[in-house]
Amino acid sequence: MKVVGEGKTRVDAYGKVTGEAKYTADLEPANILTAKVMHATIANGVVKRFDLSEAERVPGVVKIVTCFDVPDIQFPTAGHPWSTETKHQDICDRKLLNTRVRLFGDDIAAVVAEDEVACDRAIRAVKVEYEEYPPIPTVEEALAAGASVLHPDLREDNVIAHTHMVMGPDDFTYERGLQEAEEIYGQDQLAVIDKEYRTPRISHCHIELPTSFAYQDVNGKITIVSSTQIPHIVRRVTAQALGWPVGKVRVIKPYIGGGFGNKQDVLYEPLNAYLSLQIGGRAVRLEIDRENTISGTRTRHEIVSRCRAVASRDGKILARQIQAYANNGGYASHGHAICANCCTVFKDLYADRIGCEADGYTVYTSAATGGAMRGYGIPQSVFFAECLTDDICRKIGADPLKFRMENCVPEGFVDPGNGIGFHSYGLKKCMEAGAEYIHWDEKREKYKNQTGPVRRGVGMAIFCYKTGVHPISLETASCRMILNQDGSMQLSLGATEIGQGADTVFTQMAAETTGLSFENVYVVSTQDTDTAPFDTGAYASRQSYVSGMAVKKCGIQFKEKLLDYAAYMLNSDTGYLSATVYAETVRSARKRLNRILGLREGTEITADMLDVADSRIVCAAGGEELFPLSVLADTAFYSLDRSVHITAECTNQCRKNTFSSGCCFVEVEVDLPLGLVEVKDIVNVHDSGKLLNPKLAEAQVHGGMSMGLGYGLSEELLFSSDGRPLNPNLLDYKIPTAMDTPKLNVKFIELVDPTGPYGNKSLGEPPAIPVAPALRNAVLHATGVAMDELPMTPQRLIAAFQEHGLLKQNTPNGE
Amino acid sequence: MKVVGEGKTRVDAYGKVTGEAKYTADLEPANILTAKVMHATIANGVVKRFDLSEAERVPGVVKIVTCFDVPDIQFPTAGHPWSTETKHQDICDRKLLNTRVRLFGDDIAAVVAEDEVACDRAIRAVKVEYEEYPPIPTVEEALAAGASVLHPDLREDNVIAHTHMVMGPDDFTYERGLQEAEEIYGQDQLAVIDKEYRTPRISHCHIELPTSFAYQDVNGKITIVSSTQIPHIVRRVTAQALGWPVGKVRVIKPYIGGGFGNKQDVLYEPLNAYLSLQIGGRAVRLEIDRENTISGTRTRHEIVSRCRAVASRDGKILARQIQAYANNGGYASHGHAICANCCTVFKDLYADRIGCEADGYTVYTSAATGGAMRGYGIPQSVFFAECLTDDICRKIGADPLKFRMENCVPEGFVDPGNGIGFHSYGLKKCMEAGAEYIHWDEKREKYKNQTGPVRRGVGMAIFCYKTGVHPISLETASCRMILNQDGSMQLSLGATEIGQGADTVFTQMAAETTGLSFENVYVVSTQDTDTAPFDTGAYASRQSYVSGMAVKKCGIQFKEKLLDYAAYMLNSDTGYLSATVYAETVRSARKRLNRILGLREGTEITADMLDVADSRIVCAAGGEELFPLSVLADTAFYSLDRSVHITAECTNQCRKNTFSSGCCFVEVEVDLPLGLVEVKDIVNVHDSGKLLNPKLAEAQVHGGMSMGLGYGLSEELLFSSDGRPLNPNLLDYKIPTAMDTPKLNVKFIELVDPTGPYGNKSLGEPPAIPVAPALRNAVLHATGVAMDELPMTPQRLIAAFQEHGLLKQNTPNGE
Repeated sequence: MKVVGEGKTRVDAYGKVTGEAKYTADLEPANILTAKVMHATIANGVVKRFDLSEAERVPGVVKIVTCFDVPDIQFPTAGHPWSTETKHQDICDRKLLNTRVRLFGDDIAAVVAEDEVACDRAIRAVKVEYEEYPPIPTVEEALAAGASVLHPDLREDNVIAHTHMVMGPDDFTYERGLQEAEEIYGQDQLAVIDKEYRTPRISHCHIELPTSFAYQDVNGKITIVSSTQIPHIVRRVTAQALGWPVGKVRVIKPYIGGGFGNKQDVLYEPLNAYLSLQIGGRAVRLEIDRENTISGTRTRHEIVSRCRAVASRDGKILARQIQAYANNGGYASHGHAICANCCTVFKDLYADRIGCEADGYTVYTSAATGGAMRGYGIPQSVFFAECLTDDICRKIGADPLKFRMENCVPEGFVDPGNGIGFHSYGLKKCMEAGAEYIHWDEKREKYKNQTGPVRRGVGMAIFCYKTGVHPISLETASCRMILNQDGSMQLSLGATEIGQGADTVFTQMAAETTGLSFENVYVVSTQDTDTAPFDTGAYASRQSYVSGMAVKKCGIQFKEKLLDYAAYMLNSDTGYLSATVYAETVRSARKRLNRILGLREGTEITADMLDVADSRIVCAAGGEELFPLSVLADTAFYSLDRSVHITAECTNQCRKNTFSSGCCFVEVEVDLPLGLVEVKDIVNVHDSGKLLNPKLAEAQVHGGMSMGLGYGLSEELLFSSDGRPLNPNLLDYKIPTAMDTPKLNVKFIELVDPTGPYGNKSLGEPPAIPVAPALRNAVLHATGVAMDELPMTPQRLIAAFQEHGLLKQNTPNGE
Repeated sequence: MKVVGEGKTRVDAYGKVTGEAKYTADLEPANILTAKVMHATIANGVVKRFDLSEAERVPGVVKIVTCFDVPDIQFPTAGHPWSTETKHQDICDRKLLNTRVRLFGDDIAAVVAEDEVACDRAIRAVKVEYEEYPPIPTVEEALAAGASVLHPDLREDNVIAHTHMVMGPDDFTYERGLQEAEEIYGQDQLAVIDKEYRTPRISHCHIELPTSFAYQDVNGKITIVSSTQIPHIVRRVTAQALGWPVGKVRVIKPYIGGGFGNKQDVLYEPLNAYLSLQIGGRAVRLEIDRENTISGTRTRHEIVSRCRAVASRDGKILARQIQAYANNGGYASHGHAICANCCTVFKDLYADRIGCEADGYTVYTSAATGGAMRGYGIPQSVFFAECLTDDICRKIGADPLKFRMENCVPEGFVDPGNGIGFHSYGLKKCMEAGAEYIHWDEKREKYKNQTGPVRRGVGMAIFCYKTGVHPISLETASCRMILNQDGSMQLSLGATEIGQGADTVFTQMAAETTGLSFENVYVVSTQDTDTAPFDTGAYASRQSYVSGMAVKKCGIQFKEKLLDYAAYMLNSDTGYLSATVYAETVRSARKRLNRILGLREGTEITADMLDVADSRIVCAAGGEELFPLSVLADTAFYSLDRSVHITAECTNQCRKNTFSSGCCFVEVEVDLPLGLVEVKDIVNVHDSGKLLNPKLAEAQVHGGMSMGLGYGLSEELLFSSDGRPLNPNLLDYKIPTAMDTPKLNVKFIELVDPTGPYGNKSLGEPPAIPVAPALRNAVLHATGVAMDELPMTPQRLIAAFQEHGLLKQNTPNGE
């Protein structure tokens, strides 16, 4: 491969730095109106009535709508492909505005006004009367007898779903596995762990807030310009929410300032569309502020798990169990998919000799809604699995690296439940590379018996992660290529650039397959659902794999058409072309070709004699240049003899999946009295198949590692007992800053995956996964203290160190 | 046909009335900068230097560029397809800003500022020094010995082109024809006419001024949103003007407020792009005000012709000649095409027994540039031909209707010069219908011998008009159709809606051919050259013929794909589909189909057993409904078994042409002392093939007739002897208002044209053609005075009536 695999500069690098790249707000028409959502100030209850009289008198107010005005249509918000099987459809559990308040900040009304100030003033002037119920912000409260049911129309209780799955015999249970282990090994040759691990609710913290604007166009269509990862799904869901046919909804996705899964839900586009329709189709902007973005859009699920394991003292995992409870908040969003994913990968990550049992519960609570976030349940899953592994190792005195080498998911593994497996396998090589980088053996030994207030440790964690969602859900993507007069092309996809570099790697793929030079491929970055090929969008680390194959298939067709036309031209060297400015170019090309191939004049040239390289038609044998593509294109457009506008378009339905894997190794220095963890060194090693663009791949990993550091050490969305968010802002909610971030080291084990269109497999989400458990395990190594709850804040660390006698207990007087 | 031929309401009617339709100005981003062009205040000369010091100090000024700054690249502006044959390429005779001033108002500098006021102030503050030459605003002056040559780099004199063409023997000349006529008939049996006719320079007067805005996007691309008829041509010419590859230019065409040919030139888009690029790619608006639009963009050519004819006294045209001089103004624009077209149709319109000779001269002058305008030379041509015909009739005492019936272009006519001919022929039927409507015989008799100050008359004129530009130039058009989840489609074309109703008739065509209901076809009205199929645009009355065939071809492909998928579904009634919500629908459809066709269960269903009607899959035999297209579409999008996004795209290279024809009959009342012509009754009768939409067709004719009335009676752009425009505003330049406009009657002779995609042929431009000569001939009938110069203003009429003794000469004292 010539272009794929090169470290090309992002196609949007310059445009993003200079401000040329247009984001949603850049495209707003003049005289646009502003809308704001009015959020509930209780966490559980029902809106009884509004008094709008004062609010409607606020100067500049155009329209106020409340939850009593909106259509009586419930719709889902998940960024999933639609299913024509009812049981696979997402849960329809919300309206445009909700009378039943299910979380603090629920959407109960909206104001459209001339400007933001008028919106704010009006919202403050609205009087609302609630019937209030006790908040049930935790899974425990939501499952307690007598808890109010948040969606009584859909469920008898607050459990969205419970799944039970096993690895091993169909009737496997952990209890039976434990019994079998005891029978084989004898109780004293076994180590048994039974623990509760907790991961926090965190926020995506994309820089660009959820923002959109909508207006009505002719044909009665509504157009929504939105910062979304999934324009085609926004289109479908908006239609569903309005009770409209899909064809009457148009969604435009410009450049977006981050999403990380939060913009894989259809958040406010349907409401934005509805608001525009209420005022005769005028353009209305709807932006959600930072506070409500953090607490009121989507979060990574808080999952509490009880994990159990039995291992032989000689270092074999025999059986494991997870019982995971995902706090889904007020709305279903992605439903049970994320908790189920958590359970699946918990099972897959180790080769339990006897079996593994997993139960996942996804529970409605009156708290912030959980949805998709980079890793989709796997950061939690891997935290649980990797805490458990190190806890086993500690108990049996095993080296965590050797133990993992012995027990981790092996080459050739295929999950019998869903058929997903490895088609290329680099996990153990990743571990070797990471261990070598961090000087594992040396440092595990060196840091064994430390004393004093500052101690060091090294830790690791591994993961595996699938690529896309087949066969759990539909994988489909389309691509279109359009030849320009200068021999360049437009590359149009439904797949979306969301900052991850998709546009750049698609450009490389198109250049690779068609033979056009990289500079001659212009990717159409903006998706307009009226004309963009269909694609479900950016999620599940799927695009370079699923949509990438659409690029490849389309590129093959496109190139065939180019060669076909080139052959026609070379056969017309004495015909029509001889009247044109290209007469001499084509005539001499034909002569060269005749000479190279030993053809007589007049022999028919066929496409298979030709190839495209570096934007030139060349001889397939030997690669000698015949003529530039610009000559072909100009002729194809304007030939009086055979004018054809060369385009190609096709769908790729992907029926494959493959595991990526990798690991994180980290060295920390723990300051016991201060409760501080300083990362001294860190490396992520990834097995993601062929790297499409090593520079972008590294950047992708950097971002994920940074998120992993925040997940491990500082990020947590806090709520009061009555369900109010306590830190929904970027001052009190702590993402790592540049000052908090060490040098991030990245390595790859680059194996060609035979199922990937260009040997590639998932890389988008994986980097965020292994960092937090590696940190936790390093702290364990340094201090002997197992931190079973994330994030490892100073408060939690000091409390744990005190509990383990490493620090004195503070007395109430601070003595 | 079910949908084509129906009087559907315009698809954009509601959106245009309510303001939902977005025009260029509606799409401007906030904080856009404004640019204005500085126009020369001399008509002929050279800019020597600028003093910008004061202008640059005007608050709000961002950038001033002058003719000394712009790239040294000459480019053409004509909205023609590109040609790969140098001799067919348009003339490159201007730069973005010009140092050589060739007309009053030439573009010599441009200012970018925060707002319009700052632009205006800065322009007033620019000091410019010229070297001035004598203006040469007329053809006579431009051709005079010693006249300054306006484009000395391209031509030795001011003649852009001269063509000589004949109908009859190759060596035919009018002089020989006259001689031959004398030999055959004898001199006393002949009538000879030798006259000069003049048509004025007029303005298109589209309501929306030429406006665009440009900004730089990522990939280094420049985007231009513009009110144009020809987005793909704007793209190519802008690239040429900037010296850029076409792939780096993107043009977006929103709804436009009229063009009538003026927006078939690439007027200011290249300059707009250049200005944005000078300030780092920021968005800049460039709008040309009404004054400069009228005098500085394009105009309909002033053509002066000497026409001669010889006819036999028994009513046969024997030979004719035209020598036409087109005043092209300062720039070539469409070059000689318009004058040549004028000559061609002069020849074609009558069957000269001996022959016809035509000479056309297109001449640069230091006056407003002539370009495309509705009719493209034929309003002039037909004025000349039809004045000449009535002048012959008057001389030999023939009835103009009978004379035309005898001598006009006959059924089956093919122009031997270009191969264009009639494939359907309704001209004589049109004349019959018009004559019947106006009570021709009765009124010709009744108004024969009038006296008194107020007199009536009836007049007529005929015309023929080709459809598109084949084989003179390339005809190529593409279309793409995209299926939506609800079974509706997007219809995407490069052809443009410019107010003429193209979107509506394309929608009808797509519905007709695919079987979707009219309401289920959503036309993508905005062309974005990044993704829209290629089309050269709206001109030459070509789109419903050339692009219409692209719709038909694409629709056939699209429907094939639908039927293919339908067959797959009907064969899968027991397979994948049985798990979906559509199981029962498809199963029962299959049963019905089996019953209708007498098939056994399990027989393979093939696409040819099926059809699409009214957005439903039906049985081809009998039309019984099987299932709605929405079921097919939802399955095709989301099938886990076979997901395919159904689209179709294809090019139509049109190698056909066909004549439309028609006539205008008018009754006038002439008030001699006041010099007023009141239209008492008027009818246009058109032979335009099958009417795609009778309501829109009628509206199309109304608009053309209105333009014809203005051309005949009031419109003329006046210049001072030093080349300054005297009436470039809508107060002093007189287009007909509602008060000036009589009831406009329209009739059609609807014959199916076998070459048209739906039996249709040109209708866009024809209505504007025959009105003015019919008026002139009615005035001739009423008064006996032949008005040989348009428009027939009161001043001209009174002067002529005085000259002919119908009015007393005014004495200098008004006695």
